[in-house]
Amino acid sequence: MKSIEWKNGRIIIIDQRKLPREEVFLEIDGLADLCEAIETLAVRGAPALGIAGAMGIALAAQKSSAATSEQLLSELKKAAEKISGTRPTAINLSWGVKEALDAAERAGDAGEMKKAVLQTALEIAEEDEKMCRAIGGHGASLVPQDAKILTHCNAGGLATGGYGTAVGVIRAAYEQGKNIRVWVDETRPLLQGARLTAWELKEAGIPFKLITDNMAAHFMQRGMVDIVVTGADRITSSGDAANKIGTYGLAVLANYHRIPFYIAAPFSTIDFSLDDGMKIPIEERAKEEVCSFRTERTAPQGCDAANPAFDVTPHGLITAIITEKGVVTPPFKENLSRLYSQEAKVK
Amino acid sequence: MKSIEWKNGRIIIIDQRKLPREEVFLEIDGLADLCEAIETLAVRGAPALGIAGAMGIALAAQKSSAATSEQLLSELKKAAEKISGTRPTAINLSWGVKEALDAAERAGDAGEMKKAVLQTALEIAEEDEKMCRAIGGHGASLVPQDAKILTHCNAGGLATGGYGTAVGVIRAAYEQGKNIRVWVDETRPLLQGARLTAWELKEAGIPFKLITDNMAAHFMQRGMVDIVVTGADRITSSGDAANKIGTYGLAVLANYHRIPFYIAAPFSTIDFSLDDGMKIPIEERAKEEVCSFRTERTAPQGCDAANPAFDVTPHGLITAIITEKGVVTPPFKENLSRLYSQEAKVK
Repeated sequence: MKSIEWKNGRIIIIDQRKLPREEVFLEIDGLADLCEAIETLAVRGAPALGIAGAMGIALAAQKSSAATSEQLLSELKKAAEKISGTRPTAINLSWGVKEALDAAERAGDAGEMKKAVLQTALEIAEEDEKMCRAIGGHGASLVPQDAKILTHCNAGGLATGGYGTAVGVIRAAYEQGKNIRVWVDETRPLLQGARLTAWELKEAGIPFKLITDNMAAHFMQRGMVDIVVTGADRITSSGDAANKIGTYGLAVLANYHRIPFYIAAPFSTIDFSLDDGMKIPIEERAKEEVCSFRTERTAPQGCDAANPAFDVTPHGLITAIITEKGVVTPPFKENLSRLYSQEAKVK
Repeated sequence: MKSIEWKNGRIIIIDQRKLPREEVFLEIDGLADLCEAIETLAVRGAPALGIAGAMGIALAAQKSSAATSEQLLSELKKAAEKISGTRPTAINLSWGVKEALDAAERAGDAGEMKKAVLQTALEIAEEDEKMCRAIGGHGASLVPQDAKILTHCNAGGLATGGYGTAVGVIRAAYEQGKNIRVWVDETRPLLQGARLTAWELKEAGIPFKLITDNMAAHFMQRGMVDIVVTGADRITSSGDAANKIGTYGLAVLANYHRIPFYIAAPFSTIDFSLDDGMKIPIEERAKEEVCSFRTERTAPQGCDAANPAFDVTPHGLITAIITEKGVVTPPFKENLSRLYSQEAKVK
């Protein structure tokens, strides 16, 4: 299953708003449609957004009738701003956009530019599965035999090109024959756990039970959770991690119960320009998401609500960060920056 | 507003399954209907269940055609077993049932017995509002000026005869002119916070914001929660408290953020026959409640789920227990038992 791919000049996206009830594919051939798909979470998840960002620039380039490279580049920069602005917390989205834009800037004429951005987008998509399998492999070594694993939201194949980060760790442990069981947090308000992670694990045949978000502590108390693994939307140079609302609470609960708490994310999730996680902007989404359950209204009319989409887990609560380059343990500042310099050298 | 009352030989219950969309009153005149109303949470909340339990015995007595007091008592005992069995974790339900049964046992002939059980049920209902106002008064002294208060589930007027326990504390603080604001946890799976507490606070004009259960930690981290107050379904002699699933997690989070965590409950919630909270039976409810909300299915077909209705907060995480007899602080074992002996002496 591919969550996002480029086909005949269009971006094909499995519509995650409709899962698990319907498998509908969107064929996107305009920037406005892509932005809407990103904003309404038809496509979501850090790595998938990286691919979407780059493909968005490729789409803008392909559609452009600009005659000169200057004109084209200026159009692509406008498109970049528009795409990156849809989900300000998601670092991978702007990373993917920037990768494609950088490729455009390095190219010669307008024709080469169009080829270069598409090439970059396709490479990002290709690299994604390799990267997820590497994350899975590194992470699986941290999963004990017979582990009961708790995960939150969907850091799965749907959030990436197809294999998943946190779910990639679960998949890899399962593929190694470890007798694992998974607790899936439903993840209110948008229920990515109930709708997407449950669907993915069911497709993969991995044993799991769905729970409401407020049950995790109870099962930790009763010794029924061995490790917690989630994805991340942005990680700072010090190892603070922004992820789906509810992640921070799980990290505090895991800490209290002495349960290892892992973040699984591609290295591109790390924002070396930012040290302090409390400075990460938190997207506030519509109240309606909290006051209803899809079509089913839950709260009284006119009810006020808060709806931060993300929270920030300080590095002190994180046992290790699992990336495609390996498992990073504290002190994160030093260990992440060492990996960063190694990467810079290779480039 | 009365959540439950006795009128013309029937039990009138506001149907909490239909709130906040419709205000429907059930007129119950049979034991099977009452048991169904309790099981399906048309009536719920520890003190309201105490009233419902006693009124159930009164209903059984009224309906009986038993000729002798022995026959009637034997029928009432069967009714008692049936009612108490509907919600095994709820101590108040069996407490209300037992109060009415005790009154029957003290009475003379069958006619007196019928009068005595009804009298007891009406007294329990009458005492309830006095008790809630006393809890509110004691609890309000713990609420700072400008406090941001977080509450879970519905320990409100709907859970009691009309004023509430945890919500009673909020009401009393508000009536004292304290400039409070409330965070209402929606409380999955049955959304008693979104549906009931939000409805009650709106009716009372108390400022609040609805949040999903997994947001509490985030607002605690940002210094936006000053106290947490919830109800309880059963409290042991050592101060361990069973309450709606999610309460234990909040207690751990409050502890981590050094936020006072209060339980507000009638003294009858304390089960002096039990010391260790981990021995409280936890009701496991239907998977469907987790896989759906009302008509809206969220999880894939055939999805497995867990659904414990309660969790247990060990006394070490509780700052104080607010009862109608006053605020009880640690050591709970000594201080609760002192109040218990005082009560025994008065009787």
